[in-house]
Amino acid sequence: MPEPDLTTEEFRRLGHAYVDWVADHRAGLPGLPVVPPVGPGEVATALSQPGAAFPDGRLPEAPQPLDTLLDAVDRVVVPGSTLWQHPAFFGYFPANSSLTSLLGDLLSGALGAQGMLWSTSPAATEAEQVLLDGFARALGLGEAFTFSGGGGGVIQDSASSAALVALLAALHRVRPGWRETGVDGRERVYVTAETHSSLAKAVRVAGLGARALRVVDPVPGTQAMSAAALAGAMAADVAAGLAPVLVCATVGTTGTGAVDPVRDIAPVAAAHGAWLHVDAAWAGVAGLCPELRHVIDGVGLADSFCTDAHKWLFTAFDASLLWVRDAAALPAALSVTPEYLRNAASESGAVVDYRDWQVPLGRRFRALKLWAVVHALGLEGLRAHLRGHVAAAVALAGRVRAEPGVVLAAPPTLGLVCLRYVGADGGPDDAVTRAVLERVNSSGAAFVTHTVLDGRYVIRVAVGGVATEATHVEALWERLCAEAGTVRATSTLPRP
Amino acid sequence: MPEPDLTTEEFRRLGHAYVDWVADHRAGLPGLPVVPPVGPGEVATALSQPGAAFPDGRLPEAPQPLDTLLDAVDRVVVPGSTLWQHPAFFGYFPANSSLTSLLGDLLSGALGAQGMLWSTSPAATEAEQVLLDGFARALGLGEAFTFSGGGGGVIQDSASSAALVALLAALHRVRPGWRETGVDGRERVYVTAETHSSLAKAVRVAGLGARALRVVDPVPGTQAMSAAALAGAMAADVAAGLAPVLVCATVGTTGTGAVDPVRDIAPVAAAHGAWLHVDAAWAGVAGLCPELRHVIDGVGLADSFCTDAHKWLFTAFDASLLWVRDAAALPAALSVTPEYLRNAASESGAVVDYRDWQVPLGRRFRALKLWAVVHALGLEGLRAHLRGHVAAAVALAGRVRAEPGVVLAAPPTLGLVCLRYVGADGGPDDAVTRAVLERVNSSGAAFVTHTVLDGRYVIRVAVGGVATEATHVEALWERLCAEAGTVRATSTLPRP
Repeated sequence: MPEPDLTTEEFRRLGHAYVDWVADHRAGLPGLPVVPPVGPGEVATALSQPGAAFPDGRLPEAPQPLDTLLDAVDRVVVPGSTLWQHPAFFGYFPANSSLTSLLGDLLSGALGAQGMLWSTSPAATEAEQVLLDGFARALGLGEAFTFSGGGGGVIQDSASSAALVALLAALHRVRPGWRETGVDGRERVYVTAETHSSLAKAVRVAGLGARALRVVDPVPGTQAMSAAALAGAMAADVAAGLAPVLVCATVGTTGTGAVDPVRDIAPVAAAHGAWLHVDAAWAGVAGLCPELRHVIDGVGLADSFCTDAHKWLFTAFDASLLWVRDAAALPAALSVTPEYLRNAASESGAVVDYRDWQVPLGRRFRALKLWAVVHALGLEGLRAHLRGHVAAAVALAGRVRAEPGVVLAAPPTLGLVCLRYVGADGGPDDAVTRAVLERVNSSGAAFVTHTVLDGRYVIRVAVGGVATEATHVEALWERLCAEAGTVRATSTLPRP
Repeated sequence: MPEPDLTTEEFRRLGHAYVDWVADHRAGLPGLPVVPPVGPGEVATALSQPGAAFPDGRLPEAPQPLDTLLDAVDRVVVPGSTLWQHPAFFGYFPANSSLTSLLGDLLSGALGAQGMLWSTSPAATEAEQVLLDGFARALGLGEAFTFSGGGGGVIQDSASSAALVALLAALHRVRPGWRETGVDGRERVYVTAETHSSLAKAVRVAGLGARALRVVDPVPGTQAMSAAALAGAMAADVAAGLAPVLVCATVGTTGTGAVDPVRDIAPVAAAHGAWLHVDAAWAGVAGLCPELRHVIDGVGLADSFCTDAHKWLFTAFDASLLWVRDAAALPAALSVTPEYLRNAASESGAVVDYRDWQVPLGRRFRALKLWAVVHALGLEGLRAHLRGHVAAAVALAGRVRAEPGVVLAAPPTLGLVCLRYVGADGGPDDAVTRAVLERVNSSGAAFVTHTVLDGRYVIRVAVGGVATEATHVEALWERLCAEAGTVRATSTLPRP
């Protein structure tokens, strides 16, 4: 019978070998294509063929040395992986998994604590509380969002889940009978066309249906929510007997980085008793830098605020930071207590049981990886890197402005630059924009993604990878120019 | 300006040091108390005092060497942690975080892939598909639950989330208009008094309200759902114009390990078009052993089946395995596609986009840690350890049966033994049972938790830790006997 787990000495030896693999993998990233040239089913086939890890789709019967897993990873997994940690990854938003955070996460796995209740791991709960209080202060959210100020923070798996629990707290606040009788079909939730799809998903999950989603018009000529339009929509709904429940203001939309005017929106939401959630999943961490904090202006008026440490705060997924102004709001909506979870500490009321701040019961000691990052970099280091990325994006935007045939599709926000190619008449040339994106991505030298704005194709360049430096952004620009030149020189593409 | 992240050589050096810390921590567990003697606020105070990591609740301004984080962890975190990986942890259910799985998870962090779409990391998606197909076969679920059979598996963060998405799929299946108009208040969900609280939470999250939850009577004299009582409850609801949506059958309840008769329940659920979800979070992995597979008898008739790799399958949290018979069911209920997530691979229909199988958008490459476990142990090794734990629990139950003054409170299931102390009249003596539990736990030598059954206090002993061997269970038994002796010798406790 094999040992149930690695012995101490085996773990030491293999752990060092795995750490070395990680070090070599990260060091070797610049030499690899950002996006692998694999088609659907190729990885599955490679894993399932005779002699592979899972021949004929069967798990191995016999134990195998753990060193040999690295061979399969080298042979099949890495060549089949989009390399999000590559310094030339500019797609979506960054999903930083810094080496620093991995070491913090290793400690979390070593402790292997379930933090569902305070009593199931006091340190996991209280370290998270202290760390989130500290970040609330460093971001300038205001004392109201700290535990000492009557609010508090919690680490969720994702901004999607943060938005969902904010919605559930809002539903309970609007109508305390919600826990007993559910939703009644009159609830309404306010977003913009640029609000993240997770809000539509949260509305669906919560049983409201898509009809509950009100898409509020933007300030003309921008992508940002119009507070006046919001006021109009809410008043019309109230007049129709409907119940405004939640307004989601976004700081840095996924499409173009638009920033909804939280300060203007807050009194409108408050006038109708609706919960104001600020989704700053990507951009919110900019609040660490005083000169960038304007993006979260008005956040002190919100009921909840979310920003992802696993995006631009260099912390491995998952670590979405959510703060609420009322520490009782999430437990009031989410608590369910069976006998086997009862304990003296919970009943004393002196502790936080984070299971009541989230949908799942179980939870990992996620604060450790975030702690490792702020320990190793300090706020000075975090600010320096945010500033470096913003400066590189500003430089890229300057290049775009100076270059004929390409324009900024929207005002740049922090590290996000949206651009598109234009024809001789100055109008968008979707075919060229799309072709340039496809050529950049298939080159393997860099990776960018797209959105559609006003019906036209846009290339998004999201600068923010922990390994991304100004030189990588420069190289991307040169690649964009070269590919655009090739596309135009050879173009028989249909024009829009 | 500090480096944005550790250099390759720094990571190599620190990584080895952190691995060594983990090795030493695990090796030293038997010498530490399972539950720390800390009170509410003590960890937070220790972290916030002058000279500590977060003096006055502020984050550090300056970078600090990452080695020094280990000092804080040693000084404050470990002494404030309930040690779930301790071999004498018998509380709740095991939350195994094997060293093997930590190495797999380290690779996941190194790749740092977001697996939301196939195209955002083909290997993360296809490895998960292949691995879950393999486990479906190894567990005897039947080909219908594999991707090649038209179903498929997905790794969720927890069984709570698995139950929630099963419920959402069920709501959509019962009434396709659900995505547009939400729930209508007529939906009903069927559970027992022993069903996990996550079902009540899922019903609340989904907007149904507690009134939607029907608690079905057990087979008399047991804790298992009565199929006849279920049939009666469903028929009455239908007659009243209500809509049965989902039945949750539990294999191994948290309280006492009760097993609902899936084979008898399935036709009742099917007769009313209700979704049958089998929550086998803890016990389901026993299906790997042919002689234990009877606990999941009838699973082939279910619509979905969930078992947690992070409980008794030695894989670090989070890794809850969910299978559905219809691969289209979850995407049909959960898909929301904004422009920036559109891509050719998704539109080809040839790939799985796992974001549509879960509530959050983002997801980690969780298959790697599970792969590491099955690679290192093989099915042979996994079965051997499950059998070892079951044998130790059987031996413990034998001890209980042979000892005067203590009885089994429910039939043992797999690794779970429920016991209570009785008075001279043979009736339960809650005061003694409670006092014994408190003395065992405060001794630091072992940790057990409780439930209440038929209104009386019960000690649960969950055998299943990766480091737990027969000798640890023997030692627990001796400790229980010694503490019971002390309690009875000194007792001035009020008798029930």
